[in-house]
Amino acid sequence: MIIEAIYHEPDSNLCYPVSTRRITLRLRVAAADNFEQVKVIYGEKYTYHMKQQEIPMQLKYNEKYFKYYEVSIDLSDVRFVYVFEITENGKKYYFSEDGISTEYDFKLAYYNCFQYPYINEVDLPKKIDWLDNTVFYEIFVDRFFQGDFEKDQSYINEKWNNIPKPKSFYGGDLKGIIEKLDYLKELGINALYLTPIFSSISNHKYDINDYYMIDKQFGTDKIFKELVTKAHSMGIRVVLDAVFNHSSNLIMQFQDVVKKGKKSPYFDWFIIHGDEVDEKACNYETFSNCYYHPKFNTSNKEVRDFLIGIGKYYVKEFDIDGWRLDVADELSHNFWREFREEVKNIKPDFFLVGENWHNSYPFLRGDQFDAIMNYAFTKTVLDYLAYETKDAKETSYKFNNLLIRNNEIVNDMMLNLLDSHDTDRFYTYVKKNLDKLMCGLAIQFVFKGVPGLYYGIEMPLEGGYDPDNRRCMDWDNLGKNSEYFAFLKALIALKRNNVCLQKGDIKIYEKMGMLVIERYTSKEWTYLYINNTKDNVKLNINGNVLLSNKYDNNVIKPNGLVIFSEDK
Amino acid sequence: MIIEAIYHEPDSNLCYPVSTRRITLRLRVAAADNFEQVKVIYGEKYTYHMKQQEIPMQLKYNEKYFKYYEVSIDLSDVRFVYVFEITENGKKYYFSEDGISTEYDFKLAYYNCFQYPYINEVDLPKKIDWLDNTVFYEIFVDRFFQGDFEKDQSYINEKWNNIPKPKSFYGGDLKGIIEKLDYLKELGINALYLTPIFSSISNHKYDINDYYMIDKQFGTDKIFKELVTKAHSMGIRVVLDAVFNHSSNLIMQFQDVVKKGKKSPYFDWFIIHGDEVDEKACNYETFSNCYYHPKFNTSNKEVRDFLIGIGKYYVKEFDIDGWRLDVADELSHNFWREFREEVKNIKPDFFLVGENWHNSYPFLRGDQFDAIMNYAFTKTVLDYLAYETKDAKETSYKFNNLLIRNNEIVNDMMLNLLDSHDTDRFYTYVKKNLDKLMCGLAIQFVFKGVPGLYYGIEMPLEGGYDPDNRRCMDWDNLGKNSEYFAFLKALIALKRNNVCLQKGDIKIYEKMGMLVIERYTSKEWTYLYINNTKDNVKLNINGNVLLSNKYDNNVIKPNGLVIFSEDK
Repeated sequence: MIIEAIYHEPDSNLCYPVSTRRITLRLRVAAADNFEQVKVIYGEKYTYHMKQQEIPMQLKYNEKYFKYYEVSIDLSDVRFVYVFEITENGKKYYFSEDGISTEYDFKLAYYNCFQYPYINEVDLPKKIDWLDNTVFYEIFVDRFFQGDFEKDQSYINEKWNNIPKPKSFYGGDLKGIIEKLDYLKELGINALYLTPIFSSISNHKYDINDYYMIDKQFGTDKIFKELVTKAHSMGIRVVLDAVFNHSSNLIMQFQDVVKKGKKSPYFDWFIIHGDEVDEKACNYETFSNCYYHPKFNTSNKEVRDFLIGIGKYYVKEFDIDGWRLDVADELSHNFWREFREEVKNIKPDFFLVGENWHNSYPFLRGDQFDAIMNYAFTKTVLDYLAYETKDAKETSYKFNNLLIRNNEIVNDMMLNLLDSHDTDRFYTYVKKNLDKLMCGLAIQFVFKGVPGLYYGIEMPLEGGYDPDNRRCMDWDNLGKNSEYFAFLKALIALKRNNVCLQKGDIKIYEKMGMLVIERYTSKEWTYLYINNTKDNVKLNINGNVLLSNKYDNNVIKPNGLVIFSEDK
Repeated sequence: MIIEAIYHEPDSNLCYPVSTRRITLRLRVAAADNFEQVKVIYGEKYTYHMKQQEIPMQLKYNEKYFKYYEVSIDLSDVRFVYVFEITENGKKYYFSEDGISTEYDFKLAYYNCFQYPYINEVDLPKKIDWLDNTVFYEIFVDRFFQGDFEKDQSYINEKWNNIPKPKSFYGGDLKGIIEKLDYLKELGINALYLTPIFSSISNHKYDINDYYMIDKQFGTDKIFKELVTKAHSMGIRVVLDAVFNHSSNLIMQFQDVVKKGKKSPYFDWFIIHGDEVDEKACNYETFSNCYYHPKFNTSNKEVRDFLIGIGKYYVKEFDIDGWRLDVADELSHNFWREFREEVKNIKPDFFLVGENWHNSYPFLRGDQFDAIMNYAFTKTVLDYLAYETKDAKETSYKFNNLLIRNNEIVNDMMLNLLDSHDTDRFYTYVKKNLDKLMCGLAIQFVFKGVPGLYYGIEMPLEGGYDPDNRRCMDWDNLGKNSEYFAFLKALIALKRNNVCLQKGDIKIYEKMGMLVIERYTSKEWTYLYINNTKDNVKLNINGNVLLSNKYDNNVIKPNGLVIFSEDK
């Protein structure tokens, strides 16, 4: 037994309630260990010294160095206390808050058993049900489609199909999106995520100078209302981009500080090192190292109220369905807790998805975000299919690691991406290998969580480092009759209809050099097999093939994939 | 290298800011491993791919299976990212969010380095400075001293020095405490924690029927105000007991539900399984399994407002200095966050200490409690001195384990106990061995945190299982001239005057079979040596002996101790 590998923490990703009467426990042990049995010996806090129950745990996740046992337990009493019992070579070990021991005295358990003291409904992580069958589509508004030709177009400085430069403006707008809603519905997606649409001098609009004004290049309040109403009538939800970490230096409040220094009522809205703003020396906190992106001081209650006011305004006035939270991890936990409570009071199934590139468990405990943009997922797919630094086995280990980072409720809401406006395009990463792109998409759609497509992947658009990854939609070359387009549409339809992909549990492992993802309910399985080896692999399928590429007659060719289902 | 032992988690007890410009990192590795060096390679998030700095970590804590390296880093930019570099047998290993590797590509670090994204002031854990030199004294009010003989005394049903029965009433009251303040000041303590003083039919008053009324047995608003005012004038702070998990079944709100069932406006104040209260079947959530302790539903905002209102009232009206939070871990995190914010708005250095018996990191992240009653400390001292199931080495391992559970700011505020109204008395646990009691006290006062004495330890009172542990103060046998009383007074004075014991860093280990606790600043050391072996141990002391027992001429006898200081 590698004692050092054994790990558990109550009230964490390894111990969380899934309802007011049900709790899930996970125990980490060494991958190298072979135990006959792992059990939870549990009870009710105030009678545990006299009475214990037990339940076996099942091996669930396999990483490179660790594996995880898991069990969910229905409780009548939620003052829940427990220890683990591990059997190895016929010998029993107990694992408590005090570590491993060969004996355990339940009479003194109140000092060192594990506990989840009480399941309070208000602390429960909550699933947003509409995400189960949702496929997101991200639109970089200036580059999608121009619908309004009445507006002042003098800002447009680039022809639609030219390669973008950092300061290119193409004219895409909200009216353009409205006009393409029929197309998007036909593609099958049912949620939009729009990069920022508020007043800003840049093409990306991540430097906002007026949060209460839709940028004139993109439209008006009226047009945005029309967009949300029409999208909703078609079953498509709308998520906006909340840039609350920082503003533009042109925002009224910062300009007031520039003018008045410490005398400005907004001086404490920002974090300024000195008595006056010095934009050249950039003597204030910013996003990245950009003087034109002053960071808000969310330790100041006035600022919190200002930003939360914006957050609520667009829910109340425009009925939007979620906020994507830009640079979310640089704001305080305190801010996000208040923000969550306020917007969810208006719309309980509102979606909050953080732009966090790293393991973000502290933000995902149920009191802040529902999910994050899953860039760790992105990196794992890249390592497997683009960089080829991980084979199927290593990839399966890494995916298992990602799943164990958070609870299952969060896993079901994670926004899984192949690319975004902040990365090179996946299609470019795989050197325009369409087969690999299809493999990547298949992983994205079969993995636990919510697939998020970046506009243009349906051609597919290519694009390297920013701003190349923000090219215009190539409407003339949609290729709607291509096999690839049909594949993507079928994959979207599958996610929207297959119960296993929506609610199923997950297992990920390697088999015959292939990456396998199983999704299963109590009634059926859906399997994905990916062959990223150099050889054909024979695979006998008894079930129903739902989708495939480079698969024929029970043979999966290199860079091929097959998705099939089986009844239990 | 035991790879499975290596562990780190950002934004946790292993990575926490100590100011807006300083962060502490800890890395866990196997106790069995011997590394030449452990370093942090860190940088600023937006330039890390180009520019890294490094700093060595120091070995700090030693558990049985693990040891911990630690370093604190001053930052000019707080968008902090990092990986660890471990050197073993001349070979370098990197530890990132993706685990151990032999190479690390800083160009792709943004995908998998560790990060503490930004130090927001509002999220910082905050130290309460007055705790540095504070010694608490817990009073079970009915058993301490009776001062008021004008009150209706008909409830008193037991003579002062009789052994208590579950329903004994002795007459102790707030006026009695006022009269003994001079004595308490002479003893040296400077903070009182009183068990509940609000209206209740029991002697312990943990079943409260009116939170806005001081129990008539104990006094009046006026007398309590006098107590706080006089205590404050003598430099003694006052902490009350907040029983917010549950009330008495006799509270007006529950009685209303008993009468009106679902029609009561208070029906949702409790958690009732059914439409009506059935006290016999106890069809509602309670504390423990007591029908007369109905649990509050703190998922209900009205209940939160009611309890927070009480919490604020006694701060505003009576200027109390802290709440000890009864059964704190069975209330929601959500409740405690709001509670903290509201009471700390009134009095920023207000002390919130939870009754949590277990590892309570989720409550101690800086947003809920300042500290907890450290029963894991109690258990460790008992295992060493009373049960003797742990020798000095095992004990040092366990103490190191306790210190690593939380950040240093919390460690400095932990309320360390030998006993309380909820445990047998330590003196009884050690079978009335005064030498062992002195060893226990010495550990309690030299350990990081705030010592909490249980009234009567100065005789010392004996007492087994509840209610025996709640005997009356034996004022006739205080033994103020005894060596033991002098020892206790000297120990209290030491904690109140010795900078090392107040602010010093800590090291705990075993040496020559003895338990050693070092506290040190940049200028000086204070050492505690405890000999709980059967043999005399010789110890050459060059420094200044501050306090000792069974120590003479550089020899520590069995159950002996010595505290001494050295300049650096």
